Amino acid sequence: MNPKDDKRSAQYSSPVCVHNPHLDDLKDDILYHFSLGTGTHDLPAMFGDVKFVCVGGSPWRMKSFVEYIAAELALEDPKSEYPNICAGTDRYAMYKVGPVLSVSHGMGIPSIAIMLHELIKLLHHAHCTDVTIIRIGTSGGIGLEPGTVVVTKQSVDATFLPKFEQVILGKTVVRNTDLDESLAEELLQCSKELNQFKTVIGNTMCTLDFYEGQARLDGAFCSYTEKNKQDYLMKAKEAEVCNIEMESSVFASMCKLSGLRAAVVCVTLLDRLKGDQLTSSHEVLRNYQQRPQILVGYYIKKQLKAKAGNH
Amino acid sequence: MNPKDDKRSAQYSSPVCVHNPHLDDLKDDILYHFSLGTGTHDLPAMFGDVKFVCVGGSPWRMKSFVEYIAAELALEDPKSEYPNICAGTDRYAMYKVGPVLSVSHGMGIPSIAIMLHELIKLLHHAHCTDVTIIRIGTSGGIGLEPGTVVVTKQSVDATFLPKFEQVILGKTVVRNTDLDESLAEELLQCSKELNQFKTVIGNTMCTLDFYEGQARLDGAFCSYTEKNKQDYLMKAKEAEVCNIEMESSVFASMCKLSGLRAAVVCVTLLDRLKGDQLTSSHEVLRNYQQRPQILVGYYIKKQLKAKAGNH
Repeated sequence: MNPKDDKRSAQYSSPVCVHNPHLDDLKDDILYHFSLGTGTHDLPAMFGDVKFVCVGGSPWRMKSFVEYIAAELALEDPKSEYPNICAGTDRYAMYKVGPVLSVSHGMGIPSIAIMLHELIKLLHHAHCTDVTIIRIGTSGGIGLEPGTVVVTKQSVDATFLPKFEQVILGKTVVRNTDLDESLAEELLQCSKELNQFKTVIGNTMCTLDFYEGQARLDGAFCSYTEKNKQDYLMKAKEAEVCNIEMESSVFASMCKLSGLRAAVVCVTLLDRLKGDQLTSSHEVLRNYQQRPQILVGYYIKKQLKAKAGNH
Repeated sequence: MNPKDDKRSAQYSSPVCVHNPHLDDLKDDILYHFSLGTGTHDLPAMFGDVKFVCVGGSPWRMKSFVEYIAAELALEDPKSEYPNICAGTDRYAMYKVGPVLSVSHGMGIPSIAIMLHELIKLLHHAHCTDVTIIRIGTSGGIGLEPGTVVVTKQSVDATFLPKFEQVILGKTVVRNTDLDESLAEELLQCSKELNQFKTVIGNTMCTLDFYEGQARLDGAFCSYTEKNKQDYLMKAKEAEVCNIEMESSVFASMCKLSGLRAAVVCVTLLDRLKGDQLTSSHEVLRNYQQRPQILVGYYIKKQLKAKAGNH
């Protein structure tokens, strides 16, 4: 890359935006749930080269993802160990290899929201540009063969509306849950090229609860019938909902606010029209859970190859 | 204890209730997020003697709690190791010593709700009776010296109302967040006897978000002023809110539905009227976080002594 190219790409580079004038008044910014901070860590040196962030609920899965992507990109000795950058806390786990950051977010909207506030500040403090962020997760499918991967078109709430309600000072503010359409299409194209498993684009319902909130019949409490459940899930299907999970709405709204190019890629572990419990063997479930990793790994590799070719 | 006493106490013993007729139709019940199940584990043998369940966000803290309580109760060799009963998953961690179960729940209402659905079913399947459950957590205080322990009187929402909204089949159902008043008083009395740190009884505000949802000025996004924040927190104070956390409302409502005697005991890590960031040293914060453990450990020891005295 010559200096001219560098200048040109810098002109068009997109920063990670915070929207908080108070941050300028902070001497140090402590990212408490990461056990990191601007006063204790050189964030630009540690994270300035990050171009892809992958997030998922389980810390084990995010560790396995960083090992997988390192091998795929052949960036380091495959025997390398990837230390947990957030080893000072047990709230989240974070791993990095080259331009790829892998972060766990726990389960549910509040848990991923805490992580995203601190991640967005981290990327901002590190002066990262042109960052793509992808949630790789698990979900319940509606009318899909288990193991199908769903790339989210729109994240909708429990009434099938594409919105996220954020409570601020006791008042509800409605936020948009749009995701990057071109990124979703690029991921679908990657799946076609890979040709290893079925991938679809569809709406994703994001709920605050796994049992009653998703019309399951197997929670500690259930006041509705099998027919009520089927009726509700069929209404969801009519609203083009392909799968149900618990983080996509706040993920979409926060990434949009901060200017991050974002996608949600979740595998379906079961067909909720046929059951509620995860009865598949651990081996089958493990295989399913690798699919979003394989798809996103392929996408990142393709992007990096294209970029290297351009220079 | 003679057989007559046993019969009498059995007559008055209180079970852990599920409210779900569909559970009877399940051949096996898979508690997926615990990696346990009725078909794979002898739950009555493993958990039938549980009388106290302590839950908290952090898996590390719940491990340290089980080690602490084992030493306090002198139940086992202090050098014993306590294996994670949920070692097959990284979603939650669970430890047991004698009649005490210690379980992590992650951060936020959805995360603790998944855990509680599966915990209530576990205690039900194990035929446990007369179970007391206490959340030991951390929180932000309002007008309290950092390190003060708050035993929750009522859990209130972001508009200071004592209710929890559960979405079922897309419709909102309002649930009560009452906690056990006598248990709260007993815990306050324990703190007086201990005389090691200040404990108060007061309302706890439970939010879906740590940053904008708690009027913090240090998130990635903030659209309000320091004065807006102070006004909101002062209104909370007028509603007798002593502290703010992210799990108490669904904890209170689910424990009430299942007939569990429940309390919430959270230490305040900072005074939110004076700031938002956790700037205290790790050592000070660690000391604060031990306080709910010490208080609840003392309570359990006292209860077990009283019970042994009665027999």
